Amino acid sequence: MDKRIPVVVIRELSETNHILSALKNYGIECAEITFRTACAEDAIKLAVKNFPEMYIGAGTVINAEQCERALAAGAKFIVSPGLSESVAKICKEKNVPYYPGCVTPTEIMQALELGITTVKFFPANIYGGLKAIKALSAPFPQVKFIPTGGIDQNNLEEYLSCDKIFAVGGSSFVEEALKAYEK
Amino acid sequence: MDKRIPVVVIRELSETNHILSALKNYGIECAEITFRTACAEDAIKLAVKNFPEMYIGAGTVINAEQCERALAAGAKFIVSPGLSESVAKICKEKNVPYYPGCVTPTEIMQALELGITTVKFFPANIYGGLKAIKALSAPFPQVKFIPTGGIDQNNLEEYLSCDKIFAVGGSSFVEEALKAYEK
Amino acid sequence: MDKRIPVVVIRELSETNHILSALKNYGIECAEITFRTACAEDAIKLAVKNFPEMYIGAGTVINAEQCERALAAGAKFIVSPGLSESVAKICKEKNVPYYPGCVTPTEIMQALELGITTVKFFPANIYGGLKAIKALSAPFPQVKFIPTGGIDQNNLEEYLSCDKIFAVGGSSFVEEALKAYEK
Repeated sequence: MDKRIPVVVIRELSETNHILSALKNYGIECAEITFRTACAEDAIKLAVKNFPEMYIGAGTVINAEQCERALAAGAKFIVSPGLSESVAKICKEKNVPYYPGCVTPTEIMQALELGITTVKFFPANIYGGLKAIKALSAPFPQVKFIPTGGIDQNNLEEYLSCDKIFAVGGSSFVEEALKAYEK
Repeated sequence: MDKRIPVVVIRELSETNHILSALKNYGIECAEITFRTACAEDAIKLAVKNFPEMYIGAGTVINAEQCERALAAGAKFIVSPGLSESVAKICKEKNVPYYPGCVTPTEIMQALELGITTVKFFPANIYGGLKAIKALSAPFPQVKFIPTGGIDQNNLEEYLSCDKIFAVGGSSFVEEALKAYEK
Repeated sequence: MDKRIPVVVIRELSETNHILSALKNYGIECAEITFRTACAEDAIKLAVKNFPEMYIGAGTVINAEQCERALAAGAKFIVSPGLSESVAKICKEKNVPYYPGCVTPTEIMQALELGITTVKFFPANIYGGLKAIKALSAPFPQVKFIPTGGIDQNNLEEYLSCDKIFAVGGSSFVEEALKAYEK
């Protein structure tokens, strides 16, 4: 996966092509389309069809029903703000990567019990940022993190320089990509 | 509910009338009586009987047994420092509002799975305050929060000005009410 | 238990005697040997045999399988970075103290439901330190904490002066003990 995972909120289905083209143009080959909006499901279908070379997943998936819908729409990975055991089980069964948000040692241990070793860390800037990730890595050397929240050009390199970082997530990458594309 | 939820710790049953009168006099029509003290159960009974116009609930309810006792005493809502699935189920069955404390995305997702969309956020000042609540609101736009811990006259308005805040909790409202009443 | 719990990472079995002798010499009669390293199990066996007067436990135990192995090796107490219900049940059955890491009110309530009233608080420096422990103690007066992470000579006394602290954990005690021993 790309080291930057753009969190894409699509409010109108018609924006889908524009936003994904902008990301591609910006050198980002993946997108986490959030399941928060009414058109998210259709946007994923459209994105998967029109950008088959990109790695399209669904974000903000908070329960089993949304997970089933996201996978049916073609999502190639699933992200949740927190950890859902039922979503984890569906993804395991269908062999789709699941990145649940885990911020406490207990939550990370639950992820490990479910066979998950890469977790989202959200909201990263609130819960201690890179310092927290390094502290959590001591007892969990096998875990990689996807910090999300408050990450932008100012701290991106610092995050990515840590070998515990699988990738970083954020909506700022979308804004940057759009800015560059619309120039 | 009132936008201010006073967390009332009653150490002697005889204090009940005085404290609730002070709250009423201060313009607060509800009270969360904590289940931490030996006389809490009797205090709730007394408060419900003597102040039928007030909205009396039980706080610091940490297990099913306490929840049953609090409801039997007449509590009209239940608050926990964290989330208890068994307390949630009892409250749902009896159609009583339950406000569990949730501070991580995983805990909020568990509350949503139980049909709960208003959660306590405790200790608010430790876990990022309003900044954390705003960050958590991005993936959880349907959730309202009751921040509790470290809230007083200095930051009350700031909290209440955010549309994600259902109400704020705290013992400071009790102290203020008593001060005004005892003058 | 000693008020200082040294978190001991043993990379080579041959280090075991030297490290434990250093701790004893430094006045520390217990050791939490982490289950992170390949030789951890053998190190616990060796430590229990060679230092029968010391209180030897296993740390970083993250699942039932590791717990069974640690107990079979002779561990007298079990520590986890987070809370594992399955580890808690094994320890209860075998009557061995279990100190799970709990940082949110929900996690503390889960520990209480399992009959646990002493919890690890990790990473302490990231999640609010002593201020957090004091805030959490308001609704949980029955709970004692073992803060771990970022504790050293600079803040040890401050932590230990709080009556909510059962003990403090850290690798810094090992470093100090080795320094004193190797002089």
